[in-house]
Amino acid sequence: MNAEILNVGTEILLGDIVNTNAAYISRELAACGVGCYYQSVVGDNAGRLSDSLKLALSRADMVITTGGLGPTYDDLTKETVAACFDLEMELHQPSLDRMMAFFSRFGRTFTKNNEKQAYMPRGAVVFENDRGTAPGLAVEKDGKTVIMLPGPPGEMTAMFELQVKPYLEARASHVLRSQTIHIFGLGESAVEDVLHDSMLKHTNPTIAPYAKTGEVELRVTASAPDRAAAEALIEPVVSEIVALFPDQVYGVDAGDMQTALIHALTKAGLTIAVAESCTGGMIASRLTEVPGASAALLCGVCSYSNQSKIDFLGVSPATLEAYGAVSQETALEMARGVRLRSGADVGLATTGIAGPDGGTAEKPVGLVYTAISTSATEKALELRLSRGYGGERQLIRSLACLHAMNLVLRETGILSYEE
Amino acid sequence: MNAEILNVGTEILLGDIVNTNAAYISRELAACGVGCYYQSVVGDNAGRLSDSLKLALSRADMVITTGGLGPTYDDLTKETVAACFDLEMELHQPSLDRMMAFFSRFGRTFTKNNEKQAYMPRGAVVFENDRGTAPGLAVEKDGKTVIMLPGPPGEMTAMFELQVKPYLEARASHVLRSQTIHIFGLGESAVEDVLHDSMLKHTNPTIAPYAKTGEVELRVTASAPDRAAAEALIEPVVSEIVALFPDQVYGVDAGDMQTALIHALTKAGLTIAVAESCTGGMIASRLTEVPGASAALLCGVCSYSNQSKIDFLGVSPATLEAYGAVSQETALEMARGVRLRSGADVGLATTGIAGPDGGTAEKPVGLVYTAISTSATEKALELRLSRGYGGERQLIRSLACLHAMNLVLRETGILSYEE
Repeated sequence: MNAEILNVGTEILLGDIVNTNAAYISRELAACGVGCYYQSVVGDNAGRLSDSLKLALSRADMVITTGGLGPTYDDLTKETVAACFDLEMELHQPSLDRMMAFFSRFGRTFTKNNEKQAYMPRGAVVFENDRGTAPGLAVEKDGKTVIMLPGPPGEMTAMFELQVKPYLEARASHVLRSQTIHIFGLGESAVEDVLHDSMLKHTNPTIAPYAKTGEVELRVTASAPDRAAAEALIEPVVSEIVALFPDQVYGVDAGDMQTALIHALTKAGLTIAVAESCTGGMIASRLTEVPGASAALLCGVCSYSNQSKIDFLGVSPATLEAYGAVSQETALEMARGVRLRSGADVGLATTGIAGPDGGTAEKPVGLVYTAISTSATEKALELRLSRGYGGERQLIRSLACLHAMNLVLRETGILSYEE
Repeated sequence: MNAEILNVGTEILLGDIVNTNAAYISRELAACGVGCYYQSVVGDNAGRLSDSLKLALSRADMVITTGGLGPTYDDLTKETVAACFDLEMELHQPSLDRMMAFFSRFGRTFTKNNEKQAYMPRGAVVFENDRGTAPGLAVEKDGKTVIMLPGPPGEMTAMFELQVKPYLEARASHVLRSQTIHIFGLGESAVEDVLHDSMLKHTNPTIAPYAKTGEVELRVTASAPDRAAAEALIEPVVSEIVALFPDQVYGVDAGDMQTALIHALTKAGLTIAVAESCTGGMIASRLTEVPGASAALLCGVCSYSNQSKIDFLGVSPATLEAYGAVSQETALEMARGVRLRSGADVGLATTGIAGPDGGTAEKPVGLVYTAISTSATEKALELRLSRGYGGERQLIRSLACLHAMNLVLRETGILSYEE
């Protein structure tokens, strides 16, 4: 089976929004082992939409569209698909009822044009929209399927996860289950080297690497008649891979580094405080992205000036004088200071030169120290994070955050892959 | 003239990367008044790439490709275009020289397969790559043009800005100049209402609105025989628009709110310190994104626990007891405390309920207080940032950051649109 993605919306053609929907759906299809050879974007134009749809249907078994399901006259996707498949449009009463309840829950007035969103091509399978008004739908005819999803990414991804996947599974007579292994500290090609080709060529489960900034994710996906069988296929492969990267895997289905860290600290009953110079609040900001972060994070200090390192963290002026703000000694005093002043179990600190200015031959842009302090141990790492190009400030800061959070996971012994 | 975008790369079809290149180029084309009716993505496959290229050339005057210019066997873009236009490939010696110099500068070994990147279809206009090894190029034949750009976004955007724009301008016998007006505090449709249709229908300069989280950008673009003439067309329109939104415009070509704030503070010779609860370091992190932020930002405190509000900021336990952590009173004490303890001119604070948990009927998710304190004035704002859907934690935090930074620009009187 192969599928094609057709994103509908003039706002994408104008560059007003980035097409994250295509990336999300592509990744889901790849995980399902469904081939995808083309993505296309077309505006809210009946003729061009119809042409693009026919072209996609001529090349693929299944077309997944996003956008064009709203209430206005230029929302054309359902009508175009209905015309293409020669199907009548008819009112889908449950969708109308849901929509009116949705409007009344948020105190909004239901205007007549919204009814359009409840009309469906005859025989369509309707997907409820929990986050908005436009339902999604699927129609099948002559061995071809079109799945139509709303454009707003929050609505689309929730609908895909909860309704489209089961729809695809029900048709496929097998279910798919995935686990994602999170790796920090090795590049994608190095990870592939360790896995060797034979593993990457597995067909069930498949192993797909995805590179993120400073990280690699391996998605292991199995197909089986039922969920338990799929999980039984995944588990030994995941265990084998985790064992191959004992110093780099920081979680399985962990979401991201900050989520892994907050969960591990909370589970261990430990609290943390962070003192940030070059990362400037980014570690605190990432940790507080995680719902429930307050169980583990007591506070953060973004000690950007030297005086604030002294006043808020108790770093000694003599240390700053002797070694400079960007030094292992300062990093350690920052970590210790924020721990002692906050009463946290773990103190974590960063100091470095993010650039573009401020570098010297001795302390170049990209030099970062990160340090951890607990009552039992202290440790600092020296990092060289520049890749030699310009415009790296955000990259250096982002990598420094990851190294710092990883240091806590590794040094405190709180890392575990079980949830 | 109309153009089409064709992004080449199996990694996009697999969902491994989000196609930001298409959004960037679309936006640039829209600003130039070049129509774009289709975007397509195809993998590193000779047959499908050739089919997609021919289809695009049949529909558009110009095709802009990204990707497929690298050194490996599956980098096929130049070769496919050359075959399509019936052009020979030949060595472009200046590109080879540049590339060898690039490798030696970064201490990397030049391997033979890299030479492929210096071969060009005969007659191509070559665009140098300052950030990587693969040059870009343009070929023209029979009134059709194909512009080929490298896939990595940093390389592509730099090349587009510095070389593709002048190439397009030289062919167009006119130049384009744009200014971007940054608006905070009004939605896109409200902005359009104020501008009224007649302004949005201007053809020279054009006025294009772009919605960002909590913000609207208006891009004003003029076309004229030379730069001075284009600027003369833009200026009165920009002034007129700025005057229409005296309480919402925070900058012209300002980049973003944090850049505008750091520049305005630096120009005014003022320093700032921030105390964050619900935004949890996000304001500090955004401010320190800006190169040179240390001239204005002294420090930030992410006072996530109540105790840290007392210990690091001097918030009174009685205030926390009487009004709660999420209150105007606490916000004001946080702002005052961080100002006095850091010695900064301006203290800025946030406290609120970002969700998903922690809300009550009285203090629901989305309730945020932001406060400013200077030696001359203090002010707190109550914000209701929930839109009634789930999964809003990041949105609420992000909007709170913008409101807080905007409060400083408005209350200190440092806002100015001149640079």
